[in-house]
Amino acid sequence: MRELLVIGMGPGHPDQVTVQAVNALNRVDVFFQFDKGDAKSGLNAAREEILARHVVSDRGTRPGYRVVTIPEPPRDRSVSLDRAGYEGSVGDWHQARAELIGQALAAELGPDEVGGCLVWGDPSVYDSTLRIIDRVLASGVAEFAYSVIPGVTSVQALAAAHRIPLNRVGEPIHITPARQIAGGLPDGLDSAVVMLDRGFTAAEVAEPALSVFWGAYLSTADEVLIRGPLGEVAAEITRTRAELRERHGWIMDTYLLRRDRPDQPGA
Amino acid sequence: MRELLVIGMGPGHPDQVTVQAVNALNRVDVFFQFDKGDAKSGLNAAREEILARHVVSDRGTRPGYRVVTIPEPPRDRSVSLDRAGYEGSVGDWHQARAELIGQALAAELGPDEVGGCLVWGDPSVYDSTLRIIDRVLASGVAEFAYSVIPGVTSVQALAAAHRIPLNRVGEPIHITPARQIAGGLPDGLDSAVVMLDRGFTAAEVAEPALSVFWGAYLSTADEVLIRGPLGEVAAEITRTRAELRERHGWIMDTYLLRRDRPDQPGA
Repeated sequence: MRELLVIGMGPGHPDQVTVQAVNALNRVDVFFQFDKGDAKSGLNAAREEILARHVVSDRGTRPGYRVVTIPEPPRDRSVSLDRAGYEGSVGDWHQARAELIGQALAAELGPDEVGGCLVWGDPSVYDSTLRIIDRVLASGVAEFAYSVIPGVTSVQALAAAHRIPLNRVGEPIHITPARQIAGGLPDGLDSAVVMLDRGFTAAEVAEPALSVFWGAYLSTADEVLIRGPLGEVAAEITRTRAELRERHGWIMDTYLLRRDRPDQPGA
Repeated sequence: MRELLVIGMGPGHPDQVTVQAVNALNRVDVFFQFDKGDAKSGLNAAREEILARHVVSDRGTRPGYRVVTIPEPPRDRSVSLDRAGYEGSVGDWHQARAELIGQALAAELGPDEVGGCLVWGDPSVYDSTLRIIDRVLASGVAEFAYSVIPGVTSVQALAAAHRIPLNRVGEPIHITPARQIAGGLPDGLDSAVVMLDRGFTAAEVAEPALSVFWGAYLSTADEVLIRGPLGEVAAEITRTRAELRERHGWIMDTYLLRRDRPDQPGA
């Protein structure tokens, strides 16, 4: 039976993949990836570096791996979408990706071959691959067994770089898309890691006594970190983010936003 | 200058450490660990397995590593503690640990040596090591540089084993200590990963239309998974958890609790 391995590749550093992931990479005959265009070339470079560094090129009787690149379908990214519209647009995009990857699996993966998808960070954290695979299997266009190899996320790389715990004692860890904190940190929720921010949404949050721990290109040679009271560093983060995006042509960043506790300032 | 590496060791599988962590392990002269007693012997066995498997025993001119075991200070675990009492008890315990590890670092780590702490999962997720190191540095008993190597957590191992994303489209990921969900999932928060549960607190949650994805000894040969509508599987999880704990003498488990959406039942 065909097999598909969905492998977390970590947040960017080529050695931040697990030994389990390295073993999985070395079993793969065909890697499937979407072509995200030039703007995300930094991501594809990290992908290639991981394969170059960790896949043993001479595998005895087995030939080397192949890479099948699938064109990325268009996606409605209108910022004016409401929640239902946003979910509909994401659903359409998942369906289009599922059809393309289903066709590619059917055409390119031989009966006893192993396919692989390298996913940034961890496949369970803000990534659509598992949802798309469920759609492919439901469509019946290709049959395969599949398994998931977890990876380190940019959230953990952020905390490691700042050398901070994500949770305070007894409190939750909350990870959220930026659109959920545009109105501020909800009451009773004292910290949040913000993902998928197309700018630096926290700059618009007026609440005093918030601290921020921000990082871009985490774990890579280009890593940049800024931390401090939100009111003091928000402008610097917004400016730095724009400059970096301009210089590299793309950016991956995330941040922890935390409500200060009177008894533990800065904690 | 002395150096201390705080290394995430992943959720239990000896190959679920990153290549970066393996490289760090091989730089360590002295590992520091707390003796948690017999009940947690499964954890120490996994630790030993990681070192045996990934640390190169013959490192040329350098001798092998040493392991310094520190007695675990007592902790007030009364369930009757309110929030302030709980935080106070945790603070006292951190202070006692900080004093012990500060003394051990001062006594056991030579001027140019590298110390290491292997932390279950990831050092930033429900672990006290970073807070304790801050206390040690503040006390001045030992000086050292330190850095953090992130690791895969049991949360990611849970999602990988069940092959599910932790977030639904556009929604947050919420990770919380069990005491926060004893009254049910808060309004507006549709899923939560529950950690640090000394039983299966979700069994007491009366809300219908909740699904649960539970796992114990994740990523190890002893892994057990149960999933389904909470009302249908809660009793099975409670019973299984008690049996496993009795059989192994300890248990590590976690679960995702998710409010079903009418438009996406079971998603």
